[in-house]
Amino acid sequence: MPSNSAAHPLATGPRRGAPEGRPAMLLKLYSALVLVLDIVVLVVRCFLSIGQAAFELVVPPKEKSVAGEVVLITGTGHGMGRELAVKYAALGAKPVLVDIDEKGNAETARLIADLTGKKAPTFKCDVSDREAVLALAGKVRAEAGDVTVLVNNAGIMPTHPLLKHSPQEIKKIFDINVMAHFWMLEAFLPSMIQKNHGHVVALSSMAGTMGLSNLVPYCASKFAVRGLMEAISEELREDARINNVKFTTICPYMVDTGLCEKPRIKFPSILGMLGPSEAADEIITAMRRNYHEVSIPRTLLNINNVCRVFPVKVCLLIKDFLDSGVEAV
Amino acid sequence: MPSNSAAHPLATGPRRGAPEGRPAMLLKLYSALVLVLDIVVLVVRCFLSIGQAAFELVVPPKEKSVAGEVVLITGTGHGMGRELAVKYAALGAKPVLVDIDEKGNAETARLIADLTGKKAPTFKCDVSDREAVLALAGKVRAEAGDVTVLVNNAGIMPTHPLLKHSPQEIKKIFDINVMAHFWMLEAFLPSMIQKNHGHVVALSSMAGTMGLSNLVPYCASKFAVRGLMEAISEELREDARINNVKFTTICPYMVDTGLCEKPRIKFPSILGMLGPSEAADEIITAMRRNYHEVSIPRTLLNINNVCRVFPVKVCLLIKDFLDSGVEAV
Repeated sequence: MPSNSAAHPLATGPRRGAPEGRPAMLLKLYSALVLVLDIVVLVVRCFLSIGQAAFELVVPPKEKSVAGEVVLITGTGHGMGRELAVKYAALGAKPVLVDIDEKGNAETARLIADLTGKKAPTFKCDVSDREAVLALAGKVRAEAGDVTVLVNNAGIMPTHPLLKHSPQEIKKIFDINVMAHFWMLEAFLPSMIQKNHGHVVALSSMAGTMGLSNLVPYCASKFAVRGLMEAISEELREDARINNVKFTTICPYMVDTGLCEKPRIKFPSILGMLGPSEAADEIITAMRRNYHEVSIPRTLLNINNVCRVFPVKVCLLIKDFLDSGVEAV
Repeated sequence: MPSNSAAHPLATGPRRGAPEGRPAMLLKLYSALVLVLDIVVLVVRCFLSIGQAAFELVVPPKEKSVAGEVVLITGTGHGMGRELAVKYAALGAKPVLVDIDEKGNAETARLIADLTGKKAPTFKCDVSDREAVLALAGKVRAEAGDVTVLVNNAGIMPTHPLLKHSPQEIKKIFDINVMAHFWMLEAFLPSMIQKNHGHVVALSSMAGTMGLSNLVPYCASKFAVRGLMEAISEELREDARINNVKFTTICPYMVDTGLCEKPRIKFPSILGMLGPSEAADEIITAMRRNYHEVSIPRTLLNINNVCRVFPVKVCLLIKDFLDSGVEAV
C-alpha cells in the first residue's frame, strides 16, 4: 500500500522532487497532523506556564542560598553597589568590591567588616577599560577565587537634551554602561560556564524599556543592556549542558543614589524615588529567585508591557498622564 | 464659608503646613475629584486612540509625498540601502548616497540615472567616524542642500557565540550600528529642527526586540537603536514647536542582503527571508505614513509585544516552537 510508505516523511520514494498524486496528499496530511499536534502541545504547555506563574505570584519560588558565593559587584563605592555588597555579605556571600573610587570602596569594605568581621577584597578598576578588566580578573582569581556571581552595576546618567551631549559624553555612557558588561562577561563568564554554576545580574533601567527625554544616549545604553542580557541568556539556554548559569536584568525606575538629580514626579506614592537599600533588597530577591527581568517597583515592567500591546498613542497618553521623568541638568 | 476658600488648592489660608479639619478634607476631596476627572478624560482619549488605530488598520493613513525631499541614506552600496535609494528617486525625492564602498555606490547612482535621468550625488564615508560624518555634512549641504530625510541604514551583523566575538568586533558593531546614528543625528538633525521639517528613519531589527543566540552584541546594538529612536522622538514630542520632525524605527526579521549567512527557518511561508526590494517598499510606506515603529513582516512586532505580556516561559515556548534564527558562521 502506497499510503504506508507515504505516511513517513522520509519514505517518499526515490524521486528527488516532491511526490505527486495520492502519496503527496497523504504526506501533506501527515505534516499537517504533526503540526496540529505540535500546536496542541504548545498551547497546553503555555497554559501550564501561565498557571505556574500565577501560582508563583502567591507563593514565590524559594530563594536560593548565596552563602559562600564569590559575588563581584561593580560600582561598590556608593549607592546601590554599596548596599548590594553589604547585604550579600550579610547573607554569607563573599563580596568582591570593584570601583574606580578607592575611598568610597574602602568605606564599603569597612561597613562589611563592622557587620561580619571579615575583610572584603577591594579593587580599583575602570570597568570601561578592557585591559584593566582582564587584569582585574587575574587579581580577583588569585585573591578570592573564581567569581560565581557577577553584578554589573556601575553606570553613569548624564541628563540633558541629545544635542547638548558632547561626543565624549556619549562615548563614555556606552563605554561604562554597555562595553564594560562585555569585558566583564569576557573575564568572568567562562569559569561559570566551565563549572555550570553562576549568575550574572545586570543593571538596566526603566529607561531601558521606554524612551525618555533628556536621556537619549542613556536610554540607548540601557536598552542595549537588556538586549545583551536577553541574548546571552538565550544563547546559553540553547546549550542543554549549561543549565545553571542564570541571568537577571534589573530595571529600576528612580533610585536616590545621586544619579537622578532633578526628578519630576507627579504621583510620589506610586512612582516616587526609592532608597538604594530598598532597591538592593529587590535586586537580591530577584536574583535569588532566578527571575529573568524585574523592574523596581515590580509592576512597572508589566504596565509597560501591557501598554505596548496598544497603539503607540495610548502609551503616550498614559505617559503624559503620569508626567514623570527627569529634567535636564 | 470656609468650604469656598478651601475648594481651591491654592487658597488654603495663611498657614504653611497642611490645613487641618474640614478645609483639609474638602481640599483632599477636590484633589480626588480632579484626579478622577483626569482619569475619565484619559480613558476616553485612550478609547478614541484605539478606535482610530483600528480604523487605520482598514483605511491606512494617507502616504505623504517625498517629492523634492533630500533623502540621505547610509549603506547605499548594496542591499536595502540601494533599493531604498532607487525607490525614493522613483518617487521624486533627491537621494544622497553614502557608503564606504565607492564601487557599489557608483552602481546605485547608475541605476538611479538609468531610471530618472538624474545624477544622484555619492559620498564615500565611514559613518562610524564622527569627524568623517561632520565633514560629510558640510559637503552634502554644499552639493545637495539641507537633508530633510535621514535613513540610518548601514549596519553589520557578525554571527557567532558571544565568547567567540573579538573585542575589536564588538566595538565595531557598536561603532557602526549605534554610534554612527548619534553622529548622523548631530550632523543632520539641527537643520530639521530649525525648519520644523524632517524625518529620521533608523534600521533596528527584530533582534532589537528579542534576544537571539549567536547575535549577542548585535542584539545589544539593535536594542540600543530602538532606545535611541524612542527617546529622541519623545524628547522632540515634548517640545510643541517641533511637531513636524518624525521618527520611524524599522525592525526587519530576515532580509536577504548577505548579512544573514546561515538562516534557520522552520516556517518559510510565514517567517521566510524577504528580498531587499520588498523590505524597502515596507520601509518607505512606513515612513510615508509616519509610523513610529514597524517590523517586517508587520505582524511580528505585535506578536512579540503580546508575548511579553505573558510569563517569560511562554515566550520561550513559542520561540522554541518557531525555531528560527541564525547559525554561527
